[in-house]
Formats: sequence, structure tokens, C-alpha cells
Amino acid sequence: MIWVAVDAMGGDLGPEVLIKGAVWAAREHGVGIILVGLKETIEEALANLDFQGLPIKIAPATQVVEMDEAPSEALRRKKDSSIRVAFELVKKGEAAAVVSAGNSGATLATALFVLGRMEGVERPAIATVFPTLKEPTVLIDAGANVDCKPRHLFQFGLMAAVFAQEVLACENPRVGLLSIGEEGGKGNQLVKKTFGLFKQSSLNFVGNIEGRDIFRGDVDVVVCDGFVGNICLKLSEGLADAILRMLSREIKASFSSRLGYLLARRAFDNFRRRVDWAEYGGAPLLGVAGVAIICHGRSQEKAIKNAIRNAKEFAERSVPEKLQQSLLNSKDLFLIKSQVG
Amino acid sequence: MIWVAVDAMGGDLGPEVLIKGAVWAAREHGVGIILVGLKETIEEALANLDFQGLPIKIAPATQVVEMDEAPSEALRRKKDSSIRVAFELVKKGEAAAVVSAGNSGATLATALFVLGRMEGVERPAIATVFPTLKEPTVLIDAGANVDCKPRHLFQFGLMAAVFAQEVLACENPRVGLLSIGEEGGKGNQLVKKTFGLFKQSSLNFVGNIEGRDIFRGDVDVVVCDGFVGNICLKLSEGLADAILRMLSREIKASFSSRLGYLLARRAFDNFRRRVDWAEYGGAPLLGVAGVAIICHGRSQEKAIKNAIRNAKEFAERSVPEKLQQSLLNSKDLFLIKSQVG
Repeated sequence: MIWVAVDAMGGDLGPEVLIKGAVWAAREHGVGIILVGLKETIEEALANLDFQGLPIKIAPATQVVEMDEAPSEALRRKKDSSIRVAFELVKKGEAAAVVSAGNSGATLATALFVLGRMEGVERPAIATVFPTLKEPTVLIDAGANVDCKPRHLFQFGLMAAVFAQEVLACENPRVGLLSIGEEGGKGNQLVKKTFGLFKQSSLNFVGNIEGRDIFRGDVDVVVCDGFVGNICLKLSEGLADAILRMLSREIKASFSSRLGYLLARRAFDNFRRRVDWAEYGGAPLLGVAGVAIICHGRSQEKAIKNAIRNAKEFAERSVPEKLQQSLLNSKDLFLIKSQVG
Repeated sequence: MIWVAVDAMGGDLGPEVLIKGAVWAAREHGVGIILVGLKETIEEALANLDFQGLPIKIAPATQVVEMDEAPSEALRRKKDSSIRVAFELVKKGEAAAVVSAGNSGATLATALFVLGRMEGVERPAIATVFPTLKEPTVLIDAGANVDCKPRHLFQFGLMAAVFAQEVLACENPRVGLLSIGEEGGKGNQLVKKTFGLFKQSSLNFVGNIEGRDIFRGDVDVVVCDGFVGNICLKLSEGLADAILRMLSREIKASFSSRLGYLLARRAFDNFRRRVDWAEYGGAPLLGVAGVAIICHGRSQEKAIKNAIRNAKEFAERSVPEKLQQSLLNSKDLFLIKSQVG
């Protein structure tokens, strides 16, 4: 059985939601769950739930990293935090993966500190799956690295291409570099220099893509720095939400529309499910030597459940090992060593 | 009468669309139009239109700047381009404003070269109006400057605040800095340094905002560099379009939904109008000594018409003069002189 260590203390909505999601995952996906955190809090939350016969354990941790705590501080001062204990379980081989909706900076820093980096990767990055008009697209980096160099972006692209191939079953993934014009000469200094690296690589590089192209689904991997990527991610969430609100408002404004809404409700529900980020369940941290899935701080039960399912699949399919192997086999890693950037 | 010089050769859809939009503006908004470009092409397009009695003139230009031409090249080699002639008309006092859907880099470079910068502004920037759940929000810079320094971003904020006050009638506009976390310490190096400048200023600075906050309408001005801003703008267009497509698809998939759609159609139409970027009509270039409105390359007639209306209002209300006056009166301009950045 695959065991997943779940940080039961992180997230904006409190331990109950995380623990409910974890129990749900154990029941639905046959995955072993290790709930990591304050023992009493976890036991209290479990008391209200039916988890009889399910593979659920508790790993106590006496400290909690706050959502706005500086990652370096958390790492130095909270050596018995739920995040830290969760990664130690992976290190000791007692768990195959970590899922956390807590402080993402601290999760990243702890993953790096405890598990270390893959060979050839200087900066692990967060990969997010975006729904598009066609197949889903992987955007990397969704927020782990705010100030990047061209070789970092290039490594992100290498990793996400392997991810798309292994996890999304996408053959020969098309990689696009997020910029503000399609020609290679368009963009900021970072993107212009990165373009050259991708151009020389063996990746299926389709060149620059613009913001509007992401949702068309014409590329499988979108590469950008974590500052831009995080803004794209959150802007998309905010806009999708705003559009649905505006549309509901318009519909409620007239009687015939209200009637229409009732009839069209099923379509609305299907649609919401399609753009529901929760369905995708967390974003993997690529480049650390192990499986770590980072969830939105405001993740609901379902998002947690799906993230745990993803973590289990990652571990089952040995995604980190395949990623490392692909990176080492790739001639592209040497490319960056011979280039300035 | 206010005369607006319209670059009749720019844009992706050809001169007919631009000229139709211009004639429409002359009829609906009582604005004088100077169509700038190849005389024959303009006359041909006009031959099919009814413009009797409308204040429409032609200013011939023998060259056309291509959409993908390097701005510096265009400026150096095409001294009789439609963009260049249009700005010369403003310089000579024959027109009060320029509207162009052509090569935006060349439009920016030519505006700077012919009209010059406002005092205190190092980098003119493009301001775009975003629809939100509440009042519209101004995002600056939407693409003029890709690599910025903190003082540039600060100047963008100063200009957009005056713009929001003068044009959107927003009192004491709330200014937010686009970043990836709300605390001042979050963001990339550029944003962290810029935060300090805004914090010390007399602006109504509300701190960092995240991508998802833009559409809530809780700030009146969103400041970012032109790389990030252009990606936000295009991503929003692409996502809004994708969401409407997905929703239509879902609705067409079932009969009862189709019936529902017919009834809800009015709501859909109202909604589309609300998120229709064309309604807003172009983005002003703030910081040049004159009125210049940049339109999307794919602008339809209506967008051109609305952009011309905006250009006219800008000129009527002496927005550039007020902007310059406000900047000179502001103590905040001195702030940046005494700071590193």
C-alpha cells in the first residue's frame, strides 16, 4: 500500500477540512493516510468521522507553521512542525509522498532541506494544470521562484515536458514560452535569453506564446517565472469566478432568464466542474527528490482528496525517478552548462 | 471642433474597418476625423460609405509601418508613415489626438519622438480599463515597458491615479501593486523595492494585491510592469472567451439546456457586452505630451469608434495638461529623486 503523509495543520480552512478530505481519499482511492500534526486536534476531528477499517494513522508533530510565517524562520525554529515531520516520514521511507495546503514557501523550503534537489535542477518549481478548450496544459512555475535566470526557466521546461509525458500521457509535448509577442525578439530580457536556450534544445519548442493562447490548448507546457505564473494562476481563478457571478447577476435580473437558468442549470453545473481548480487537486513540486503536492490554502475537501489521489499516482508511477532519469539522459542539461545565463 | 488623427493603415483587419469606425465616430460623437494613410486606399474605402456632411479629411502618408516591424527601424526609415504623419499633425496643432490600432511599439516610439515626454515621467505607459464586479479598474502598464525599475512603476502609479481621478471620476483612487502575496515582503525584487516608494508617497496606496483581486474591484489602480500587464490583459481576454465557449458547448449539449439558453439569451448578451473589451475603446498612452490612444490590433469598428470618442474626451478635458500639472504639484515626484531605484 502507498502511504501519503498529509499535513493536517496547514491551509486557511482548518484541520477538519483537510482531515475529511484525507479520509475521503482513503475510502475512495485505497490509499494509506498518515495525518501529521497536533495529536489532540487530529483525534478530535477524527472523532466526528467514520473511518472504520480505513488505513489511517497519526504522526504527531508539536509545532505548526503559520500561513504567513517566513519559510527560513519556520525551517530554523520549528523542527517539529507538521510540514517538517511529514517530509521526514518520506525521508525515512514511511510515506511515499507529502500533501500540504499549508504555507507553500515553507513547504518548498522544507522539501528542499529534507529531501534535496534532483541532479541537474537548481530550482524546483510548481507545476499547475490549467483547463483549456482542448487538453489540459501544464503551467510551470506557478509561484516557487520569483526572480529567475534563463537557465532556471529552461530547467522548468525540461521538467514539465517529462511531467506532461508521464502524467498527462502527452506524447512529444509542445513547449511554449510565455511572453508578450510571438516573435523570438519579443519579451523582457529574461524571456529573450531563455528563448535561445529552448531554441537550441531537443524539446518540441513552439516558441513564444501570449497570455490569450494559454486557454486555447495549443501547447502542452507553458513556461514562465514564478512571479508571472502565480499572477496568471490567481488572475484566472479570480476572473472565472467574476464571470460566473456577473452571468448569474444578469440572469437573475429577468424572469424569463430565471426560467432559462433553471433549464440551463445542468450545463452550468457541468461547466463549473470543468473550470473547478479543485478537480485537479494540487500542484506538484517538480525537481525535489520525492513527491510533494502543494494545495491551495483555501482547498476544500474535494481538492484535498484529489491531491492525495495525485500524490498516490505519482508515487505508484515513480514519477520523480522517471523525471530524474529523463533529465540525466537528456543532452539538454549540458546545453545550459555551456551557455551564459 | 476637436479633430482626431486616425492611423487608417494600422491594425490586423485592414483599413476598411478602421475607416468605418472613424466615420461612425464622426456621426455619433460630432468629432472631426483626419484619416491618415495612403490616399488611394482611403478614398477607395470611403467611396463605399455615406459620410456626406461629416467632418472628415484625409492627410496623405506614403508609408505604412508593418505590425511586426521593429519600432526603431520604423522610426528611422519610414519618416512618411501614417503613424508618423498622424503625430506630426498633433505637433502642428492640426489635430488634438492620435488613435492607432497599428504596431503599438512603433506608435509608442513615434509619440515619444514627435511629442516628447511629460516632465517627471521617464517612461510613458499604457493604461487599460478592466471591467470588475464593481467599478472599472485601471491597469498600468499594459505593455509599453517590459523591463522596469522601481521608480518607473512608481511613476506609472502616479499617472494612473490622476487618470482615474480625471477620467473615471474616481475620488482619491486606491492604488494597489500587483504581486504574489499581500504582505509588503512578498514579490520579486522589483515589486519589493517599489512597495517602499509607494508606502512613503501621498497616494492612497493599499499595498500589494494578488491576481485574483483585480476583478473584485476593490482597488482603482493596479500597477505592474508592461510584461506582466500585457500577459494579464491577454490572458483575461483569452479566458473570458474560453469560458463563454465552454459554457455554450455545455448548453448546446442538451435539449432542455438549449431551451434554457434561448430564454437566458438576453442575460448572455448583456453579459457579453459587459466583458467586451471593445466597449472601452482603446488604451491611452500616459506620460507623452499629448493624447495618444492605442487600440488592439484586432479592433472592430465599434472599438475604433469608442477609442475616437475617448480621444476626443481626453482632448476636451485637457487630460494631458492636468496630468502634467498634477505631477508637477505632487511632492511624490521628489520622492523618487531622493531614493535609489
